[in-house]
Amino acid sequence: MSSSLGNGDTPRFDPHFTENVINAIGPKTTPRTRQVMSSLIRHVHDFARENEITVDEWMQGVQLLNWAGKMSDDKRNEGQLVCDVIGLESLVDEITFKLAAEAGDTATASAILGPFFRHDAPELANESTIVHGVDDGEVTYMHGCVRDVKTGKPVPNATIDVWQASTNGLYEQQDPDQVDCNLRGKFRSDANGRYAFYCLRPTPYPVPNDGPAGKILELLDRHPMRPAHIHLIVIRDGYKPVTTQIFDRIDPYLKNDSVFAVKESLIVDFVPLKGNPKATIELEYNIGLVPN
Amino acid sequence: MSSSLGNGDTPRFDPHFTENVINAIGPKTTPRTRQVMSSLIRHVHDFARENEITVDEWMQGVQLLNWAGKMSDDKRNEGQLVCDVIGLESLVDEITFKLAAEAGDTATASAILGPFFRHDAPELANESTIVHGVDDGEVTYMHGCVRDVKTGKPVPNATIDVWQASTNGLYEQQDPDQVDCNLRGKFRSDANGRYAFYCLRPTPYPVPNDGPAGKILELLDRHPMRPAHIHLIVIRDGYKPVTTQIFDRIDPYLKNDSVFAVKESLIVDFVPLKGNPKATIELEYNIGLVPN
Repeated sequence: MSSSLGNGDTPRFDPHFTENVINAIGPKTTPRTRQVMSSLIRHVHDFARENEITVDEWMQGVQLLNWAGKMSDDKRNEGQLVCDVIGLESLVDEITFKLAAEAGDTATASAILGPFFRHDAPELANESTIVHGVDDGEVTYMHGCVRDVKTGKPVPNATIDVWQASTNGLYEQQDPDQVDCNLRGKFRSDANGRYAFYCLRPTPYPVPNDGPAGKILELLDRHPMRPAHIHLIVIRDGYKPVTTQIFDRIDPYLKNDSVFAVKESLIVDFVPLKGNPKATIELEYNIGLVPN
Repeated sequence: MSSSLGNGDTPRFDPHFTENVINAIGPKTTPRTRQVMSSLIRHVHDFARENEITVDEWMQGVQLLNWAGKMSDDKRNEGQLVCDVIGLESLVDEITFKLAAEAGDTATASAILGPFFRHDAPELANESTIVHGVDDGEVTYMHGCVRDVKTGKPVPNATIDVWQASTNGLYEQQDPDQVDCNLRGKFRSDANGRYAFYCLRPTPYPVPNDGPAGKILELLDRHPMRPAHIHLIVIRDGYKPVTTQIFDRIDPYLKNDSVFAVKESLIVDFVPLKGNPKATIELEYNIGLVPN
């Protein structure tokens, strides 16, 4: 913690202010809330003092966060995107995964949910497609096996919830020209733990930059691009859920993802597919689930 | 800065992550933006690691901030109020005032603007009242002189913009039962630098607790009360503007203001007034302005 000392160790600002704010926390607060909020207050105050944040600068920040709230609805979470572009979602994901791993719960590496998940994706049969009305994409046959990481046995009846952006860089809820729930679907692993569907080989795209997250990227002279990826959530009763993203190894933005979500273990290889009239690319992706 | 080290000094989390996010800042960023945002990223990441913030906890924070943005409009700034209850507005006000003081610009002590200022308060004549339709208040004759702090001479034609809550604890924009712009007005100092008007002796009130700021107070087991105060902004061409609040010395919440805005120099004495049929209380409040 910085004490924001000036010359001769005289505090430039009221040295008791932060302790006074923390000490105002009452006795009925839970221990976790007390810990987290005391630390948050200390960091926010230290940040303000170390940088001598002025009223005008602070108010710019307030307006930016209010703007994020106003843009958010059930199809878009701009507050989340603001966190994403400063790496916070990816970091709390790493923390959460590490805590699970230390509790013996690790399996398929996790990754951030991102702001474009929808709870109401349609349930689809294996071997069907999530691609509708996209003429310029490379259709990919994605398939694999869901296994129990402890026994190695196939896990039937797991739900594989998948979503991806279209070739124009937009998720369906961002794009009035796509049919509702395009490039989304929920599949179930069969009796042998297998799932299979047709999707697009993902393409890189910019995060939406018409809001505060875009403003932050502009201020930081950063590009908004995300490397090509497919989102997955895998859920099965009796197992820990897995939220992940898988990235295309040949993508040019793997090293500078605008939301810092890439991990080596999440990079996969899309390979040419012959003899299937429905697809030119194949991706085998196997998923390990940890029992509760 | 904490490095969140575990046993044997092995970092529990990717030790390069924060530097990678900071190093993504591009060359065209201004030096001030680079400084402030690098520090913000470092503090936010350290906060997350030190407390091992989970995805669920982080998402609660995101939803709370989005909620603040949704509640905010041109009459209410909930993002500002969230900052206020953790002391941030008061702190950046102290910083800003200190920077002005070091530049030789100090005069009447400043205080936070608060979320209830309106730009469109009516211009009123001296000796008029801002109190309309309030039966249970103590009407106060507030008056004083605006002076140039360097010459000591009266400053005519300064605008004194004043606002206060009613006896029910509500500002007029929060209360459909008050007339528009009740308890607000802009006055001008006369040729002798004098201003005078009738207002209420202020009463303590709770900050609005129907939103995320109230939720934070509840989580922290804190009361929402603000000590009784009157807001003032004093503006005159050729002088630095002053934003301040003045507090009643007998208020029971002076020591535990829910937004931490009280300073000793802002505490004033309301005294009994005899012989004026319009008021029972008097407050003399003189204002010093610093030339540009």
